Amino acid sequence: MKLYDELLRIIGDSERVSINETVLEQHSKGVAYHAACKPDAVVIPITKEEVSRIVQFANDHSIPLVPFGAGTSLEGHIIPVNGGISLNFTLMNQIISIRPDDFIVTVQPGVTRDQLNHALKKHGLFFPIDPGADASIGGMAATNASGTNSVKYGVMRDQVLGLELVLADGSIIRSGGYSYKSSAGYNLTGLFVGSEGTLGIFTEIILKLQGIPEVICDVKATFPSIEAAGKAATMLLKAGLPIGKIELVDKKTIEAVNAYKQTTYREEPTLFLEFSGSGPDVAYSIEMAQEIVSSEQCKSFEFENDSIKRAQLWEARHHVAFAILAANPGMGMMATDVCVPLSELTNALAHTRKVVEEQGLDAAIFGHVGDGNYHAVLPVDPTSEEQRKQVEEVHKQIVRFALSKGGTCTGEHGIGLGKKAFLQEEHGDLLPIMRGIKATVDPNNILNPGKIFEGVSVTPRLKGSLTS
Amino acid sequence: MKLYDELLRIIGDSERVSINETVLEQHSKGVAYHAACKPDAVVIPITKEEVSRIVQFANDHSIPLVPFGAGTSLEGHIIPVNGGISLNFTLMNQIISIRPDDFIVTVQPGVTRDQLNHALKKHGLFFPIDPGADASIGGMAATNASGTNSVKYGVMRDQVLGLELVLADGSIIRSGGYSYKSSAGYNLTGLFVGSEGTLGIFTEIILKLQGIPEVICDVKATFPSIEAAGKAATMLLKAGLPIGKIELVDKKTIEAVNAYKQTTYREEPTLFLEFSGSGPDVAYSIEMAQEIVSSEQCKSFEFENDSIKRAQLWEARHHVAFAILAANPGMGMMATDVCVPLSELTNALAHTRKVVEEQGLDAAIFGHVGDGNYHAVLPVDPTSEEQRKQVEEVHKQIVRFALSKGGTCTGEHGIGLGKKAFLQEEHGDLLPIMRGIKATVDPNNILNPGKIFEGVSVTPRLKGSLTS
Repeated sequence: MKLYDELLRIIGDSERVSINETVLEQHSKGVAYHAACKPDAVVIPITKEEVSRIVQFANDHSIPLVPFGAGTSLEGHIIPVNGGISLNFTLMNQIISIRPDDFIVTVQPGVTRDQLNHALKKHGLFFPIDPGADASIGGMAATNASGTNSVKYGVMRDQVLGLELVLADGSIIRSGGYSYKSSAGYNLTGLFVGSEGTLGIFTEIILKLQGIPEVICDVKATFPSIEAAGKAATMLLKAGLPIGKIELVDKKTIEAVNAYKQTTYREEPTLFLEFSGSGPDVAYSIEMAQEIVSSEQCKSFEFENDSIKRAQLWEARHHVAFAILAANPGMGMMATDVCVPLSELTNALAHTRKVVEEQGLDAAIFGHVGDGNYHAVLPVDPTSEEQRKQVEEVHKQIVRFALSKGGTCTGEHGIGLGKKAFLQEEHGDLLPIMRGIKATVDPNNILNPGKIFEGVSVTPRLKGSLTS
Repeated sequence: MKLYDELLRIIGDSERVSINETVLEQHSKGVAYHAACKPDAVVIPITKEEVSRIVQFANDHSIPLVPFGAGTSLEGHIIPVNGGISLNFTLMNQIISIRPDDFIVTVQPGVTRDQLNHALKKHGLFFPIDPGADASIGGMAATNASGTNSVKYGVMRDQVLGLELVLADGSIIRSGGYSYKSSAGYNLTGLFVGSEGTLGIFTEIILKLQGIPEVICDVKATFPSIEAAGKAATMLLKAGLPIGKIELVDKKTIEAVNAYKQTTYREEPTLFLEFSGSGPDVAYSIEMAQEIVSSEQCKSFEFENDSIKRAQLWEARHHVAFAILAANPGMGMMATDVCVPLSELTNALAHTRKVVEEQGLDAAIFGHVGDGNYHAVLPVDPTSEEQRKQVEEVHKQIVRFALSKGGTCTGEHGIGLGKKAFLQEEHGDLLPIMRGIKATVDPNNILNPGKIFEGVSVTPRLKGSLTS
């Protein structure tokens, strides 16, 4: 009996089970540089019961399962490196309930963040986690994503109050619930969030929401050096101002944006900020902020309340990754994602630029200054062994610097395929516990095998009678 | 060879190893109603290496180990129900390093929160988690404590960036680190926090800090009914004001405070609030708040900026638990700790008062309105079987109500001894995973056995050659 026939028998709808080469190809890679690898079949479930039946079947036959959301992972999470079944959650995209008085929403994992925020707007609410892409909530929970808002609102894990998930044996369980806090036993919700699809497959996610602030004001300020910009950022954070976002972009990256967009942004290290809160608070904060940054040799300071003009102010920030990729057509992308203590951030940014230049490479370098997380985005030709090595060397030096300061190799993208060796360096003494938990929950290693760490027992590439 | 001799051999200092009956007695109970049970010995370590050696010894001989901080647990966490060794962390109370520019502090587990805040003040920083007692940071991390500040700053788990801990085999490991966020593998830091001493013993804790707000203003507002007070609280939260604390105390509880303190507080459901932030923001918020509550039939509204007068304004709130206990001298205390969705809180408070009255009992009832967590504090004579049954019946009905609304049996006190049956009701489908994790990390079940759930293998009460 073939895999396709078995899956079709379970799902009963040929529109939602596929072994078409184009479909398999679409599920073979993320947006980053990692080598593609096709699944043996793609299933598009519409209910948790279907997910449960597929997982149970896969477990019975030791077939790898890879959950697939919006496909925007930067660390190869969705690549079926051992083949098997890709579970595409596009059709499990219902917003199940909005509870405005509780500041809570329950969604299926395929809901995207733009879709969610669109639905929340009429209630005066929003969901604050904003990775660059219009990612799925399931994927964001799987990688513990964050973005520019985390300085004010925290990361994905801080928003997830509860989960419904399917375990490796097909059982459907619930963790957490509808209360804002709990000390009821081990924090399994916070363990499943960030487990990259290796411990269970989400079918429902309960999220905390935020009220849309009364006033939002954006600021762009430029500085003579990255050190001055970094110092200004620290002073702003210490002043306790209601900072919603605080982002730093280095000079070379602004130059790349100008070249790409034919714009004339000041080619200086630039801080992008957002203040949000009550009208009087934001007005007072802008005044304070201007005073603080002028003592750090600020060269230009612009601020804007209007939402369209605010977007224009941030344009240079939003184009940084595209600018680098556009200058290197046809190439893949490698994004570093380290996080360091705040006081080490400007040193780390300068060190990163130096390391990139030593290898004769291009990179956009920009940081979430509020939490010490920053990215170097490097174009990479996946077919060039030499370039891969150069990029990997840059990555290694950036991570080693971060770890030497007590930082982490990944602030928001996850370990996935590309950072397994770094996880060993960072948390070698925790890996036995992580592997022990994995073995307890997924003894046959069918759930997204090969991600985070090599499996307890490596699931073999699917062979034999079930191969389609 | 006797237990005492063995421990003395490891520690080498008779001042820090004890089998004195008074000392054992001091380590036999918490502040709540649970039956006392003495350890076989008490050890007071001063280094992580000593902790490691004691744990290794205990593991080799299957001797239970119970970490002991300030002794203020409300759920019997520190009671050695299977005997064994109490590890008292009083002398591991060093603040290892304060990093003001990183908003980070590293402490030993015996540091108390008052001690920490005293040391932080000169840096303009503070640590926001405030359970009623002057608890130890180790104990607060073990139970995922919170308090009145969590509506603004989150709970203990949100503050712990990293841990050094001793595992059951005596190995010393580190999780997390000095970065504000990380997606590096499974979130073990967040798993150890709230594990109630059952997965590892903390020897160092890295905490996130907050800047002391520019202005703090406290408010006391009274209402004709608990429903009106609850509705006002919801409106205040939805208005997005910079609320630092928001607490609700019911009418009967204020009456008990007046009787206890001979005060004349208005005997009406009362909201206690704190606003903090910039001067203009707080002024604006008080104005807005007054407007909002008057539309909910607010009967009295007082506010205060001065720190001494602020404390006076909160006096009635601070005395609620004492008032009930003072009216019932010599009795123990049972504190419920459920958490419900915000929209259910006033219903839950009214239901709780009804349940308490049906049993003819006294109780202080007060809630952290910002996160739906509230307490009923009941005096209980531990020697009266009938009263225990009554109190347990009240507890059960309160928890059942909370669970029926998607809430939790414990918001901040933990499961400990008294809520194991409720954990089964709330998260029965998660218990096999929790037990699996426990068995992976502590196969001999020596770390605080009998807490959260019955052990994988129950450690027998210490017998035989090692008995002192």
